Amino acid sequence: MTGHHRTPVTVVGLGSMGSALAEAFIGAGHPVTVWNRTPAKAAPLVAKGAEHARSADEASGLVITCLTTYDDTLAVLGPAAATLDGRALVTLNSGSPAGAREMAAWADGHGARYLDGAIKNVPSAVGAESTLLYYSGDRAVFDEFLQTLRVMGGDTVYLGAAPDLAALYEMAVGGTLLPALVGFFQGTAPLQARGLEAASMVRFSVKWFEMINSILPVFAQEIDSGDYSDPASSVNLFLAGAAHDEELGTEANLDVEWHKGFHDLLRRAVDAGHGDHSISALTEVLRTPAPGA
Amino acid sequence: MTGHHRTPVTVVGLGSMGSALAEAFIGAGHPVTVWNRTPAKAAPLVAKGAEHARSADEASGLVITCLTTYDDTLAVLGPAAATLDGRALVTLNSGSPAGAREMAAWADGHGARYLDGAIKNVPSAVGAESTLLYYSGDRAVFDEFLQTLRVMGGDTVYLGAAPDLAALYEMAVGGTLLPALVGFFQGTAPLQARGLEAASMVRFSVKWFEMINSILPVFAQEIDSGDYSDPASSVNLFLAGAAHDEELGTEANLDVEWHKGFHDLLRRAVDAGHGDHSISALTEVLRTPAPGA
Repeated sequence: MTGHHRTPVTVVGLGSMGSALAEAFIGAGHPVTVWNRTPAKAAPLVAKGAEHARSADEASGLVITCLTTYDDTLAVLGPAAATLDGRALVTLNSGSPAGAREMAAWADGHGARYLDGAIKNVPSAVGAESTLLYYSGDRAVFDEFLQTLRVMGGDTVYLGAAPDLAALYEMAVGGTLLPALVGFFQGTAPLQARGLEAASMVRFSVKWFEMINSILPVFAQEIDSGDYSDPASSVNLFLAGAAHDEELGTEANLDVEWHKGFHDLLRRAVDAGHGDHSISALTEVLRTPAPGA
Repeated sequence: MTGHHRTPVTVVGLGSMGSALAEAFIGAGHPVTVWNRTPAKAAPLVAKGAEHARSADEASGLVITCLTTYDDTLAVLGPAAATLDGRALVTLNSGSPAGAREMAAWADGHGARYLDGAIKNVPSAVGAESTLLYYSGDRAVFDEFLQTLRVMGGDTVYLGAAPDLAALYEMAVGGTLLPALVGFFQGTAPLQARGLEAASMVRFSVKWFEMINSILPVFAQEIDSGDYSDPASSVNLFLAGAAHDEELGTEANLDVEWHKGFHDLLRRAVDAGHGDHSISALTEVLRTPAPGA
């Protein structure tokens, strides 16, 4: 990007993430148009210099939608479909690969140049050099608008031409969130039962997730090779630890029902001959739906 | 630690972690005695300069055990119990707070000065400045041997005099491991179904855990205050995402049975009036065993 003429951007959907994106573009000197179903959310951005579109068909430049689901995105763009012909459209909602494929077909049908995207972070991280966004779909859109897309986050990645790749990776990567958080929430309960603050656990949990990050390449290598025979931590070791979970649950009067699904996976892995294999061998069990499921 | 006289250390239990600890002490110039039920495991350490105790009662200096469970630790130390009188003993096994209390009572009964510890990392991280170990129990042991303990990891923390605090924090913190890993393993399956390597997901998952780390202080603050009313991500938002999980599971033919426990927690939180509250309100549900459980 050279000179004074930054690409005009339209941000559709002004929740906390959409508003953060619009602010980042305003801050970077782009002409910004905003639109939201609830117009009041546009006011703080208009005060900072954004134009407020009265309807979605007043979009200009690169159109970026930031709504909750593909259905929401289709509902908002529907009335403006005729204006999308030839326009570059980037969607940043959550959803499944199937939803992304439907969205891409709809965009194609209206002549839009479509790039599906995912932002894997919180609104406060928008614009940071390390903030990751990934995209799939029309490579020409990615290349043409790369400098503009990088305003949202410096770690901007193109995954491939199949429009559902961003949604596929978003779901694959995002699947650790709820399990990891529930594990953390549960850990705070026995601390509180002892009069200790949840805050006292944070710095230890942060280190623990850093440790988990350090071993992911090893597990990925085991999964890609299908060779689970040199375990750092075996399925049997985790199964032995399951007994301690129950003990702590009883001691602290916790609901540990949600552990049962994990214990079932461990036992099924043992039944399949993976007891002395790496815990990553659970991948083989996860690929095989449970009997009767 | 000054001069040439490093504290003698005995390492009992030479699995991958115990061996890494012994190597770190040898490397730091401590006189090291090692003992293991399977003597062959001592040979590589003896080649590096360790003394090999023929029985556990030949321990000298600070005694550090690194076995799998408290039961294993008691079984190994039992025959040498008479030699522990007045000696400083540090245990680094896994186990529950109840197990730690039993261990402490046993050690007290034999006159040992007891410090319970936990190392939250992999063997390859032993000795690094950032590697975390935490301890609870006899403060005088911690203070007297601090420089020696720091050889195992630079981030050495004393949690308090109650001997079960290290085990309590270890379980509280460690409870995220299996859920986080299963989430990661599951994510690799739909990628492989598309011919994409698990390795391609690692860098994105690493960033995702870094994002999770960035939001833990907020959740801890909500849990400590009991105020869940200003959510970054609500229970209802996660419940909406649950439908996408099922969709991806069907598309990629995955076992998503283990998700049911999480979905039950989300629904129970909604039933308890937490639908529009922060996802950290699940802590309130986890503290209340499920009806009939």
